[in-house]
Amino acid sequence: MMRVAVAIVPEVRQLLQEDPTQLRELLEEIHDEDLADLLGLLSESEAALVLRALPTADAAPILERLDEDQQEAMVEHIGMESIAPIVGEMSADERTDLIEALPEAVGDTLLETLEKVDPEAAAEVEALAKWPEDSAGGLMTTDYVSVPMGFTIAEAIEKLRRVGGEAETIYYVYVVSGGNRLLGVVSLRDVLLAGPNDTIGEVMTENVTAVGPEMDQEEVARTMAKYDFSALPVMGADRKLLGVITFDDVMDVLTQEGTEDAQRLGAVEPTEEGYFQTAFWTFIRKRVTWLSALFISEFFTGTALRHYGGVIEAISKLAYYVPLCISAGGNTGSQSSTLIIRGLAVGDVKPRDWYRVFLRELGQGVVLGVMLAAIGVVRVLMWGDGWQFAATIGVTLVAIVVMGSTVGSMLPLLLRRLGIDPATSSTPFIATLIDVMGIVVYFNVAKLLLADVLAAAHHTPLP
Amino acid sequence: MMRVAVAIVPEVRQLLQEDPTQLRELLEEIHDEDLADLLGLLSESEAALVLRALPTADAAPILERLDEDQQEAMVEHIGMESIAPIVGEMSADERTDLIEALPEAVGDTLLETLEKVDPEAAAEVEALAKWPEDSAGGLMTTDYVSVPMGFTIAEAIEKLRRVGGEAETIYYVYVVSGGNRLLGVVSLRDVLLAGPNDTIGEVMTENVTAVGPEMDQEEVARTMAKYDFSALPVMGADRKLLGVITFDDVMDVLTQEGTEDAQRLGAVEPTEEGYFQTAFWTFIRKRVTWLSALFISEFFTGTALRHYGGVIEAISKLAYYVPLCISAGGNTGSQSSTLIIRGLAVGDVKPRDWYRVFLRELGQGVVLGVMLAAIGVVRVLMWGDGWQFAATIGVTLVAIVVMGSTVGSMLPLLLRRLGIDPATSSTPFIATLIDVMGIVVYFNVAKLLLADVLAAAHHTPLP
Repeated sequence: MMRVAVAIVPEVRQLLQEDPTQLRELLEEIHDEDLADLLGLLSESEAALVLRALPTADAAPILERLDEDQQEAMVEHIGMESIAPIVGEMSADERTDLIEALPEAVGDTLLETLEKVDPEAAAEVEALAKWPEDSAGGLMTTDYVSVPMGFTIAEAIEKLRRVGGEAETIYYVYVVSGGNRLLGVVSLRDVLLAGPNDTIGEVMTENVTAVGPEMDQEEVARTMAKYDFSALPVMGADRKLLGVITFDDVMDVLTQEGTEDAQRLGAVEPTEEGYFQTAFWTFIRKRVTWLSALFISEFFTGTALRHYGGVIEAISKLAYYVPLCISAGGNTGSQSSTLIIRGLAVGDVKPRDWYRVFLRELGQGVVLGVMLAAIGVVRVLMWGDGWQFAATIGVTLVAIVVMGSTVGSMLPLLLRRLGIDPATSSTPFIATLIDVMGIVVYFNVAKLLLADVLAAAHHTPLP
Repeated sequence: MMRVAVAIVPEVRQLLQEDPTQLRELLEEIHDEDLADLLGLLSESEAALVLRALPTADAAPILERLDEDQQEAMVEHIGMESIAPIVGEMSADERTDLIEALPEAVGDTLLETLEKVDPEAAAEVEALAKWPEDSAGGLMTTDYVSVPMGFTIAEAIEKLRRVGGEAETIYYVYVVSGGNRLLGVVSLRDVLLAGPNDTIGEVMTENVTAVGPEMDQEEVARTMAKYDFSALPVMGADRKLLGVITFDDVMDVLTQEGTEDAQRLGAVEPTEEGYFQTAFWTFIRKRVTWLSALFISEFFTGTALRHYGGVIEAISKLAYYVPLCISAGGNTGSQSSTLIIRGLAVGDVKPRDWYRVFLRELGQGVVLGVMLAAIGVVRVLMWGDGWQFAATIGVTLVAIVVMGSTVGSMLPLLLRRLGIDPATSSTPFIATLIDVMGIVVYFNVAKLLLADVLAAAHHTPLP
């Protein structure tokens, strides 16, 4: 969809030089998102000129859609006095995010300037800024439409006409008492279907689904997706209506949470920006923590192998099968933990289901283990390592795969119960844990089933 | 949110026995989603009784929200003749999904029955069923509101009142020509702000963003999330309006695609239903394919180790470091492939960016490799294996980590270029590939740096 933006760049550049007043007409029919893409293709100073050429109300939704870096550059290039009115026209939640993302001193100056230009907009920022970014309070906007219960439908439509241009959603009208307490909700559909003289109190739904301002954004998103709501009110103590969360923010949250989960599963600390927007050293920081933690825990594989050094020296072929056996456990563990972590994320699996999960994974581990063991045994025989060796590998594989599926499924549930995000257990960490356990299992099975070979090799009792 | 459903179960059971006619009143104020949860808590025959006790128009949205299994059970218990009118009242896309999910014979009979009861609803199913489930055509509904260009705003409002109860979205009114060709769109906001005598042609936006029916659902979701659309029209050849995709379906797609990506990253074939809804043997099938593919490719680690058997026999300590070295490569590879796969999924990274990605990952690989090598060297010295050994491990780690980050990032890009979903390269597969390459690197570095030790051990030239 970048094509629209690319196509008009030359024309915009020409108008900027020749006749900036005509820009407005050219840009009128283009979607804000494409205009935001366009600004990204221009130099910062050109982009600033385009924003200034547009009426404030048209510039605001474009400024909303820029990246945080671009927003900061626009604030710099356009200057406090000229940008404050545009910021004032932005939707309350985006305005708050912009001010919070700026370097602190710049953000404070902008908020002070905004207080002079548009005190109401500044007050909204202060009300929204107190909630954590990833909570319901951080997602909500105060740009909603509310009416008292006594309004008629005609009066409600009149109010929608008056303030509808600024509100972020007009699809629901919230019915509030004097102290802004939420009494009910009327959808625009209900408004259309009702007669003009019906009162709001007659048509409203009293059973409103609402969430508290501290609810985690992932749970908010899940609630809205489940109920198919396009907007969800946020209520504080005493049923006070604090704001409204709209579906567009939820679509972003769902995408972002999907990325975070995938990154945690891949042992990367979640990045806040896109791949190319994230700086080199930020990436190093996000990767090295997990990578060195995994590396250090993998030391235990060395310790374990060293412990069985005598066995390896006696039968060096045993070493050839180490990566094969432990990776089978690691892969099974990855599968189980992925299934459970995602099940927890979408609400399919709850920590209290642990016993049912355990039984399922135990059963699956046995079946999958036997299947892999069958393949493994054939391979050992093909390599000509004999039946006794084949039995060792077969038994080891069943044991390791069962261990992989049970440990891989139980660990995320345990972490969730302890209040830790289960995705931070990241499948590579589980794989590492299972690597070490796998080595112990493998060499103990070998000592048991290959006892005579070992004795012959050593001519001494086993360690 | 299940609490609402749990709380009313006893009352519903009592009314079912004593006075089913009163059910309707009890259930009126409860959200459809909670009612769907309620049906899940009842026995199938009780659930069927509740559905039958409700007016058709109220039963339809509840039937929509049931799982496929539950829907099938309801069709069985309620019977074709009685369920067809309810199915006819369902939204067109959900109705199509229900009929497609039923066993073929049952679905066909239901469609035939529907043709008698509600021929229009049956025709809609036939029009929608021809598109793949995961395409724009499979997501769209035909329950939208359209008007001719000559309508006045007052006429449009009148039409919205008349058909708005059935339409899935009334927030956009589509402007069409005689042959249902899409000419423009008017948002309900525009309708409210316009005067009653303005014509639709005057207020409509002609620059409509639309997608083709064959677009993949993930791209549809990304487009809607980017532009913050609550509905997106689907256009066929000659700008013919085929249907409309609404935000609620997109929220489901985003969740589902997140799960699919996570599962593919965890080497599980995506499951269509929740953890506990998926049957035991289905899981085995979804897991064993990847697990045995990975297991068989891990055979090459055995082949590689066997190839260096002479080296291992000469210096058995080398075997102790195999899992440590290769897992460092595997973990780095997991990180890189996760970052790129997710970047591709959300549109941050494009295949044509491969060279920039390569340079970044090469640089990061070097930095991360040196960091891990530093830790590794200290550990080797602590184990008392000496400087020469430490150098071997250090050099190997840098090489393996660089390999992990470059191969891990390039493989998903290559797969995407070849038209294969990059998530199917699943990080465990990359880890396996890097395991084998890591062994080769490790023993070659060892042969080079430990040449004198090897020579002393063998008293013969190296293999």
